[in-house]
Amino acid sequence: MGMLSDADEKFLQEAISEAEAGLAEGGIPIGSVLVVEGQIVGRGHNRRVQQGSAILHAEMDALERAGRLKAEDYRRATLYSTLSPCDMCSGTALLYGIPRVVIGENRTFQGPEAYVRSRGVELVMADDPRCRRLMEDFIAQRPELWNEDIGV
Amino acid sequence: MGMLSDADEKFLQEAISEAEAGLAEGGIPIGSVLVVEGQIVGRGHNRRVQQGSAILHAEMDALERAGRLKAEDYRRATLYSTLSPCDMCSGTALLYGIPRVVIGENRTFQGPEAYVRSRGVELVMADDPRCRRLMEDFIAQRPELWNEDIGV
Repeated sequence: MGMLSDADEKFLQEAISEAEAGLAEGGIPIGSVLVVEGQIVGRGHNRRVQQGSAILHAEMDALERAGRLKAEDYRRATLYSTLSPCDMCSGTALLYGIPRVVIGENRTFQGPEAYVRSRGVELVMADDPRCRRLMEDFIAQRPELWNEDIGV
Repeated sequence: MGMLSDADEKFLQEAISEAEAGLAEGGIPIGSVLVVEGQIVGRGHNRRVQQGSAILHAEMDALERAGRLKAEDYRRATLYSTLSPCDMCSGTALLYGIPRVVIGENRTFQGPEAYVRSRGVELVMADDPRCRRLMEDFIAQRPELWNEDIGV
């Protein structure tokens, strides 16, 4: 916990920047980047509010903006997210065989981590206080919007 | 198998119509509709080719086009798909607590059905020859595109 490599710290910071950009737009502050061989190939943030979207969680937005990648690119990718990926986003990582996910925090929400690990994906937990603070503040201010985002 | 109610047959036919529309656009022939209380609230088809999308599988397209629904709407919904939902689409059904999925066929591709059932979702298998034929013909003609769609 909290022992990321320098590269992982750098890319998690990019995901946090995406979360902050989403918050500034009036959206849900969750951000994500997809990295292949040390390069960001897609970056995004939750766009439920901004685009009236039921599917553009941060991770989905990052994958969509990465475009149509080859299977071998996904297979050497790391997905960074400021928050533990939900069932949808976890399932998407499984579909594409993304082998490694770096998670900002999983205290305010926890996706199906045990199942994802059972499918062979490495999950790295940063337990980052900036990620937690973004979600704690947002959930306190907009609980109904947060519940909508996780189907509650 | 193959013993759908009249309502399920009707909505599966709508999903097949979506698959055929996708095929006519040069896309992957998989279609889906989301039904709440006997009404189609979202309909869609795979748009990988048409929109260069990595996330718009048929079920995702139908859910996105349904817009931001309330949790209680998803909880009484049925999702129809011409093909067994993949990890991504299955995860999305789980996120939103969709309790029932009607599947056109699962012979050309099978998603994580056992896991989805273990999470409490009812899966109804139509084993429909029209759905199978659409996929068999497509896979024979465009195997590389099909593999891309399922991350292979």
